[in-house]
Amino acid sequence: MARTVDILITGGTVVTLDEQDTKFVPGALAVDGDTIIALGKNEEICAAFQGRETINVPGSIIMPGLVNSHTHAAMTCFRGIADDMELMDWLNRYIFPAEARNVNPELAYWGSMLACAEMIKSGTTTFSDMYIFEQETAKAAKQAGMRCLIGEVLFDFPSPNFKTPEEGLVYTENLIQTWADDPLVNIMVEPHALYTCSPDLLKASKALADRYQVPLATHLLENKAEAKQLEGKFGKRATQFLMEGGFLDERFIAFHGVLMDEEDIRIFADHGSRVVHNPESNMKLASGVAPVSAMRNGGIVVGLGTDGCASNNNLDMFQEMDTTAKLGKSALLDPTVISARTVLRMATCDGAKVLGLDGLVGTLEAGKKADICIIDMDKPHLTPMYDEYSHLVYTVGGADVETVLINGKLVMKNRRLLTIDEEEAMRRVRAIAQRVKKSLRNGF
Amino acid sequence: MARTVDILITGGTVVTLDEQDTKFVPGALAVDGDTIIALGKNEEICAAFQGRETINVPGSIIMPGLVNSHTHAAMTCFRGIADDMELMDWLNRYIFPAEARNVNPELAYWGSMLACAEMIKSGTTTFSDMYIFEQETAKAAKQAGMRCLIGEVLFDFPSPNFKTPEEGLVYTENLIQTWADDPLVNIMVEPHALYTCSPDLLKASKALADRYQVPLATHLLENKAEAKQLEGKFGKRATQFLMEGGFLDERFIAFHGVLMDEEDIRIFADHGSRVVHNPESNMKLASGVAPVSAMRNGGIVVGLGTDGCASNNNLDMFQEMDTTAKLGKSALLDPTVISARTVLRMATCDGAKVLGLDGLVGTLEAGKKADICIIDMDKPHLTPMYDEYSHLVYTVGGADVETVLINGKLVMKNRRLLTIDEEEAMRRVRAIAQRVKKSLRNGF
Repeated sequence: MARTVDILITGGTVVTLDEQDTKFVPGALAVDGDTIIALGKNEEICAAFQGRETINVPGSIIMPGLVNSHTHAAMTCFRGIADDMELMDWLNRYIFPAEARNVNPELAYWGSMLACAEMIKSGTTTFSDMYIFEQETAKAAKQAGMRCLIGEVLFDFPSPNFKTPEEGLVYTENLIQTWADDPLVNIMVEPHALYTCSPDLLKASKALADRYQVPLATHLLENKAEAKQLEGKFGKRATQFLMEGGFLDERFIAFHGVLMDEEDIRIFADHGSRVVHNPESNMKLASGVAPVSAMRNGGIVVGLGTDGCASNNNLDMFQEMDTTAKLGKSALLDPTVISARTVLRMATCDGAKVLGLDGLVGTLEAGKKADICIIDMDKPHLTPMYDEYSHLVYTVGGADVETVLINGKLVMKNRRLLTIDEEEAMRRVRAIAQRVKKSLRNGF
Repeated sequence: MARTVDILITGGTVVTLDEQDTKFVPGALAVDGDTIIALGKNEEICAAFQGRETINVPGSIIMPGLVNSHTHAAMTCFRGIADDMELMDWLNRYIFPAEARNVNPELAYWGSMLACAEMIKSGTTTFSDMYIFEQETAKAAKQAGMRCLIGEVLFDFPSPNFKTPEEGLVYTENLIQTWADDPLVNIMVEPHALYTCSPDLLKASKALADRYQVPLATHLLENKAEAKQLEGKFGKRATQFLMEGGFLDERFIAFHGVLMDEEDIRIFADHGSRVVHNPESNMKLASGVAPVSAMRNGGIVVGLGTDGCASNNNLDMFQEMDTTAKLGKSALLDPTVISARTVLRMATCDGAKVLGLDGLVGTLEAGKKADICIIDMDKPHLTPMYDEYSHLVYTVGGADVETVLINGKLVMKNRRLLTIDEEEAMRRVRAIAQRVKKSLRNGF
């Protein structure tokens, strides 16, 4: 007799991204509670299980939800506020003043909520976040039903949320304790960068991360100016400083790593430290091109992120995958250096590894949490289909995602969000943006 | 009394892209027959005109339809057939055999029809095409109601459509005569490339183009190998050969131009010849990065194209714009070299200039043909909006296009295609793809 489960997803092409790259065409999945309890050929799963709810999706692709391994969710509020200028102009004339004058818990909450709406609507089920007032981001993610690994941004100068770095560390520890047993919200310690944090703050951050065994993450080697500055500051390469300080281990995550050279890669690989690649932001800010193939070949696990909406300007991981593959080829003038399949892994299982969540998510396998993205392939721009991997990277866009489950729960069905009032989120952020505009007019 | 016109479009933000970059917020347009007869502030236009049909779009952006200045429409049939390999492997093992065994009038018609569906659904109203059996592409475009400038690909060896280049020239002349008085379909002469066409074929192509005063277009300097081969063949730079042969004038269009150097740019600019940039294809095939800023600064009019679906793998011009801006910045490590506004012009008015259609389309101005794209901005990923130009380039995707008019006729309303049976187009192309797959299995 067929066993009853909460949700049965049937009839689609199941792209598991497990180690053997198993596909089931057509395939099906049985989800009970928060977990994928079985998956396989459609007829076998349909014979063995019946669903309290059945989602039948012939012609669709069923794949792991995407993992956005680096963003600043609440910066949706600053989406497109300034573009096409020098990094320091952009930061000093727009982003920093806009943040200093406007970031508060309300902005953090509604900006993050809008980001969750956008992410779910484009197939992302897990995100990694660094920003200000992350309690609000945690609450928004929890309400949205999104999985996340987040942390309060720490630096030497005051933030809208704390006067001293010590307060920032206390806030972070409080975050860790608040969400310790949460199934969705995970916390990490996030010093902003080596050029904005004193060695003392870095050491205290590391100690906190070690005490709770959570990841330590920071922006690193994003562009040439930074690399040069750090070499001046430390009198040695930044990765050398990190290694000697005992910062590098499997819980260390570097965002960007654009300037990583052979020696940096060896040091990271030796310590099992991870990197998140953000190609669209790197391109838009003209930061350079991260050596993704060299890092992967060198043994580093590399995830993929969109970065924040002020430097992208969206959170669409499908577009980010397309760019990752194309930029990788273009930069090395070699179309074979990075394949669609590799990029898809960066955006799913490898991203989950970077965040230390690969025991839970990143692939479709029995026993994993049910973070699932279903894509409607019955559209002109997705026709015909010779190869699923090719389509997922080079052709599908976020708007093609039809239905999303996170931790076994439906958060979007047929493009209707079930956990977020998207009209309210848009209304709130539009009101915030009006205030932001006004604050900038008064300031310049 | 208000004058009655066919279509009144009201309430949206009108982005005209005229020389002064005029915007009307909110604005409106009056369309009568095939022409924009007036546009301006919403209240003024609404007072002066009433529409037999009124399209009221508060919160939306109303902009000129996009101009895809280089593609191979029917290659939708080969979308994603092979990726991530060396150019010559890709061509010789997949594309050329797939074409030789499968391209026939049916493939050309339905592949082009599917391309028209995809293009309209992503806001493109004009396309420039080079492929085989272009009578079929012309028929499909005509049925779809799309504006185009197309030509039969010519080369020294036999094509599925002709045994000799002379037959190809006859076919092209017949195309020109067939569509001479058509309001939508325009014909050009298209020798494939300097490495596939003898000087005699090039000369005969130029003579034909001159006889009918139509553009002459070809692939040029797409990658280093080609540039080197041509220098060997001619004993001089390719642009020098073209100049001395009298090929270069304002009706000459080069696709790609990746390897254009300072001298090539000077030669092109001196003759008023045009270039089409195809960044996503260039990246995916690892061809290099075209010197877009240098070409524009040197005085060349540069349009934007997606290239065919085998090397992109879609026809979304919004994505192409995003990539154009980001790649331009990344390649020169300078975020100021190319702005959103510049890119938007490349995809609209400059593209129209490249194709010699700027008297008709490319901007929203009274007297121009009504080729109009309306974008629904009421979505999480497009919220908030500080600047229309930024959003159109960095955030909007093809799927956000809601309604499209071409030559005054509604071809899509609320994402429903009005001139194409999209289900039939998909069904036909899927059947063709089955045959393509089989033909490749038998061959390798």
